[in-house]
Amino acid sequence: MTRFVDVPALTQLLQRKGVAPFMKDLADCLREDFLRWEDFDKSARVASHSEVGVIELMPVADDRLFAFKYVNGHPRNTAAGLPTVMAFGVLADVATGVPRLLSELTILTAIRTAAMSALAARRLARAQSRVMAIIGNGAQSEFQAIAFRDLVGIRELRLFDVDAAATAKLAANLVGQGLKVTICSGTADAVRGADIVTTLTADKQLATIITPAMIEPGMHLNAVGGDCPGKTELDRGVLEGAAVFVEYEPQSRIEGEIQQMAADFEVTEFWRVLTGEKPGRTSAAQVTVFDSVGFALEDFSALHFARDAAAELDIGSIIELVPRSTDPKNLFGALGIEAPAGAARKVPTPAGANLAHFG
Amino acid sequence: MTRFVDVPALTQLLQRKGVAPFMKDLADCLREDFLRWEDFDKSARVASHSEVGVIELMPVADDRLFAFKYVNGHPRNTAAGLPTVMAFGVLADVATGVPRLLSELTILTAIRTAAMSALAARRLARAQSRVMAIIGNGAQSEFQAIAFRDLVGIRELRLFDVDAAATAKLAANLVGQGLKVTICSGTADAVRGADIVTTLTADKQLATIITPAMIEPGMHLNAVGGDCPGKTELDRGVLEGAAVFVEYEPQSRIEGEIQQMAADFEVTEFWRVLTGEKPGRTSAAQVTVFDSVGFALEDFSALHFARDAAAELDIGSIIELVPRSTDPKNLFGALGIEAPAGAARKVPTPAGANLAHFG
Repeated sequence: MTRFVDVPALTQLLQRKGVAPFMKDLADCLREDFLRWEDFDKSARVASHSEVGVIELMPVADDRLFAFKYVNGHPRNTAAGLPTVMAFGVLADVATGVPRLLSELTILTAIRTAAMSALAARRLARAQSRVMAIIGNGAQSEFQAIAFRDLVGIRELRLFDVDAAATAKLAANLVGQGLKVTICSGTADAVRGADIVTTLTADKQLATIITPAMIEPGMHLNAVGGDCPGKTELDRGVLEGAAVFVEYEPQSRIEGEIQQMAADFEVTEFWRVLTGEKPGRTSAAQVTVFDSVGFALEDFSALHFARDAAAELDIGSIIELVPRSTDPKNLFGALGIEAPAGAARKVPTPAGANLAHFG
Repeated sequence: MTRFVDVPALTQLLQRKGVAPFMKDLADCLREDFLRWEDFDKSARVASHSEVGVIELMPVADDRLFAFKYVNGHPRNTAAGLPTVMAFGVLADVATGVPRLLSELTILTAIRTAAMSALAARRLARAQSRVMAIIGNGAQSEFQAIAFRDLVGIRELRLFDVDAAATAKLAANLVGQGLKVTICSGTADAVRGADIVTTLTADKQLATIITPAMIEPGMHLNAVGGDCPGKTELDRGVLEGAAVFVEYEPQSRIEGEIQQMAADFEVTEFWRVLTGEKPGRTSAAQVTVFDSVGFALEDFSALHFARDAAAELDIGSIIELVPRSTDPKNLFGALGIEAPAGAARKVPTPAGANLAHFG
C-alpha cells in the first residue's frame, strides 16, 4: 500500500542505478515537471523557526499526486555529529488521500538540488563552460560536481572551504571521477577564471561570499547555499550586475539572494526559460545567476522518480502507515479488542466522584 | 533514532494498555497541554482541496517539540473499501530537527478526538449526565462511547445512523462494555431525553442533523462531524440558543459549526475554561455546544503520549528515516559508492553535443 524507502534503501537504489545516471534521469524528470509548471498547486513552505534552526513543511500537488517534504535547517548540528539538513517526504494519491510513498529525502534533496542546478546551468551558463569553482565543500558538493560533469560538461574544479578538511574530503571523493581538481587558498583564488561558480555555504547568516570584484564577464553563478530569510551568499552588487533567475518568485523574494533587493528587482522564473517564453543567457559576456532556494516541485519530481525506480527494482519495504481496512466504519472492530469480562465492574464511579481528577 | 509505530504496532499498544485506560491517560495529557496553551506556536492547517476530498498538513510546536499530522478527508472512499479519513504524524526535536516518532494517526485520531470530547463534556455537560445520543455510528462512535462512559459517567446510549448496518456494528461492538444501548428510529427519537448529544456524521455538506425543535434545556452537544468548510451538522438556530465552545477560534470560524454564524458570534476557547479564566456551563438549563473540529495540539498530545507509551513497552520499530551520519559533511562518502573504474571513459560528450537532450 505504502512503499517505504529509508536511508539504506535509497543508498541501495543509488548503488544499483549509479549516482550519475540517477541524476541524469532525474534531471529529465525535473525538466518535464517544470514544463507543466502551471498544472501545479504551489504554495510557499510553512516554516517553524527557533533560535537554533528551522523546521519546514513543503507541500505541492497536481491533479493526481500530492507531495510534501519535511526538512530542517540546523547549522549547529554538525558539532553534534548530525546533518545540518535532514529531510523525508511523502507522495499521496489526490483521489483517495492514500500515501503511496514515504521516502528519506536527505540524500535525495542533495541529488535533486544538483540535478536542478545542472539543468539550469545547461540553459544559463555559456555552452562551452568547462571550469567550475565550488565554494563550500560540504554534503552537497560531490553531487554538484558529478551533475555538472555529466550534464554541463565541466572538466575542472577549483575548490575552497573555510574548513580545509571538507575540501580534502571532496577532493578524495572525486578521485577517479574524471575531473581535474585544484584546491584553492581562498574564494577569490577559486573563482578566478571559472566559467561557473557554485556556492554551497551553510551558515545561517547574511554572508558575502562572492563580491563584485570577483566577477568576470560571462560567469554563471549557481547560488545554492542562501535559501532562507537572513541567509545569503552574494553581495547585492553581484545581483545588480547580473540577469537573475529563480524557481518560484514569491518564495525566492523571501528566502533567496534577492531578499536583499527591492520588491521590483527584475527576476525570471526558470520554467519560463524552459518553455521558451523568456530568454536565458542573451550574450557571452552576460553574468547570469541561478538564485536557487529549493522548491517543493523539485521534491515532487524526486519523489515520483524515486517511487518508480524503487518499484522497478523492488527496493524498500511495504508498510502499514494507514489501515488497510475492509470495513472503514469499523475501526474499533479491526483492533480485535475483546469486551472485558465483567466490563460492568470496570466502569468507574460516576462523574461527580471523578471531578477532582479533572479539577 | 526514529521510532515507527505503524497500524499493527498501535493496535498492539492499545491491546496491551486497553483502549479505556489509554483514553483516560491521554485525556490527562490533553488537559496538561491545553493548560499551557500559550506555550504553543499555533497555525491553522494547510489544506489542499480537490473535487473529491482534501489533504491537510497540521503543524504545531512548543519550544521542545515540533509535530505535524497528515490527514485526508475523502467521503467517497468508503465505497472503495478505504477509510474516509486516514492520518499519520511525526514528532521532532525543535533543537535539532531530528524526527523522533513516526506514527499512524488514523486510529489515534479517533481516540484523541473521543478523549478531547469527553474532557470538554466533563466541564460543559451537567455533572450527572447519564444518557448520550450518538448520531452517526461510524468509525469514531465506539471510542466516543467508551470515553464518555469512563470520563463523564454515561451509562445509556441512544443510537441512530442513516446506515442501519453501522448502528448494528456499534451495538455489537459495545456488548459487554457496561452500557445500556437503545437503537432508535431517527435522530429526533435518539436525541429525546438525552443529557448529551454527540454528532459524528461524515457527509461533506451543509447538513442539518440537529434542529432547534430537538433541543431540550440543559443538553450538551458534542458536535464532532462538522469539521471543514462546507461541512456542518447543526442548524444555526441551535447555535443561537447555546453557549458555544471551540478549540482554536481562528480555525473554528472557518471549519466549525460556527462557519454559519457572523464573525462576531460569541464563542469561548475551551482552554480558557480549563484555566478558569472563563466559565463553562453557568446553569443547569443552559444548552452548551462543543464545536469540535480537531486541532493540531490534540495530535501533538496524542503523539507524545503514544511515543512514551510505545517506548515504555518497546512497541514499534526503529527506522532510518534520516541518516545517522558520523560525518554530516560526507553524505556522498556514506553511500559507499566506489569511483567507477576508468570513470574518465564514462564522461559523456561535451555540453554542446548534449543540448539536444535538454532541448
